[in-house]
Amino acid sequence: MFEFFKPRIPERYRRSEHVFLRNIDPVLQRQVLDQVERPRLVACDTMNFWISGKPEEVRRTLAAVDVLLINDAEARQLSGEWNVVKAARAIRALGPHTLVIKKGEHGVLMFSEEGSFAAPAYPLEEVFDPTGAGDTFAGGFLGYLAGTPKVDEAALRRAVVMGSTLASFCVEAFSLDRLLTLSRPEIDARYRLFKRLTHFEEV
Amino acid sequence: MFEFFKPRIPERYRRSEHVFLRNIDPVLQRQVLDQVERPRLVACDTMNFWISGKPEEVRRTLAAVDVLLINDAEARQLSGEWNVVKAARAIRALGPHTLVIKKGEHGVLMFSEEGSFAAPAYPLEEVFDPTGAGDTFAGGFLGYLAGTPKVDEAALRRAVVMGSTLASFCVEAFSLDRLLTLSRPEIDARYRLFKRLTHFEEV
Repeated sequence: MFEFFKPRIPERYRRSEHVFLRNIDPVLQRQVLDQVERPRLVACDTMNFWISGKPEEVRRTLAAVDVLLINDAEARQLSGEWNVVKAARAIRALGPHTLVIKKGEHGVLMFSEEGSFAAPAYPLEEVFDPTGAGDTFAGGFLGYLAGTPKVDEAALRRAVVMGSTLASFCVEAFSLDRLLTLSRPEIDARYRLFKRLTHFEEV
Repeated sequence: MFEFFKPRIPERYRRSEHVFLRNIDPVLQRQVLDQVERPRLVACDTMNFWISGKPEEVRRTLAAVDVLLINDAEARQLSGEWNVVKAARAIRALGPHTLVIKKGEHGVLMFSEEGSFAAPAYPLEEVFDPTGAGDTFAGGFLGYLAGTPKVDEAALRRAVVMGSTLASFCVEAFSLDRLLTLSRPEIDARYRLFKRLTHFEEV
């Protein structure tokens, strides 16, 4: 019965420059993408259900994707590699030039054309509800890139930290409650805390 | 029978400026410390066996310690707190001004008087033998501080990265094999890779 669902993108979205193919059937992800005329950046999410159930379709979708955002278990499952560096190489060979691996409280690892980047999660004293942290990360990541003239390594790294910043607010309250009251100065202040959290000098 | 073992520090070590109380009975750790005249920095390790078996003795030892290096499970057990920020506050209240929490492949979190610092583990393609990584971290951390005129926040952060750098070599081969052939230029080059791994710009 699912086969009858054909996503139709409204006319006004067909010239979107940034596309995020959220976690649905990889066949439908491609149907969505095919309706967007000339996207500048295509990001994608998926999950264990599709990786094991429709591996060939997942691969076909990935061939058209620039950035894949998944968690560490999904990266291992998709690549068949336990080691995260090997997993990243195998996944990037499928299409995405950039792979963002989300590790929850342990932060994020990004693998791109210029190598690897590691960002921690912000150590919070109260984690009220982790639901939606991964989606909020994706929103912050892609929202930042959508406002950036050039998607280069430096921009991708700032986008990872912006995604981590937004996710750190998401988990502070139930559902979307904290995001609904969030202000730009609060976001910028926490981004600066990430800078402080990770800064060290050369020896 | 264990009670008959009384560690005796050789005369030439009694004026050591840096002391690392490695994981033994906390009563013996204090006996070692008492034989050192005026150490500048006292670091300490412990484990689940002592935390559950001799909790009061562990606390008495910690009261005389500057830096505690333990893993995340030990931090939770010692503090009774699941949340790592709360655990860190509870443990620092026992004595150590600085707590270094080792998380294996997920890196290190340090809590000090000036807040928190997060360093990743270096993403390696081959992890041959993780045995000794924690001890190698401690050696790199304390060795760096021993060569530094002032143990301030910036020095502690560089020491964490130096510890992580050394540990990343340790796991590349069996036992001490990789450390035995390690050169200073190799160490400095990998330290710079940590800088590159974690660098991002302000927004």
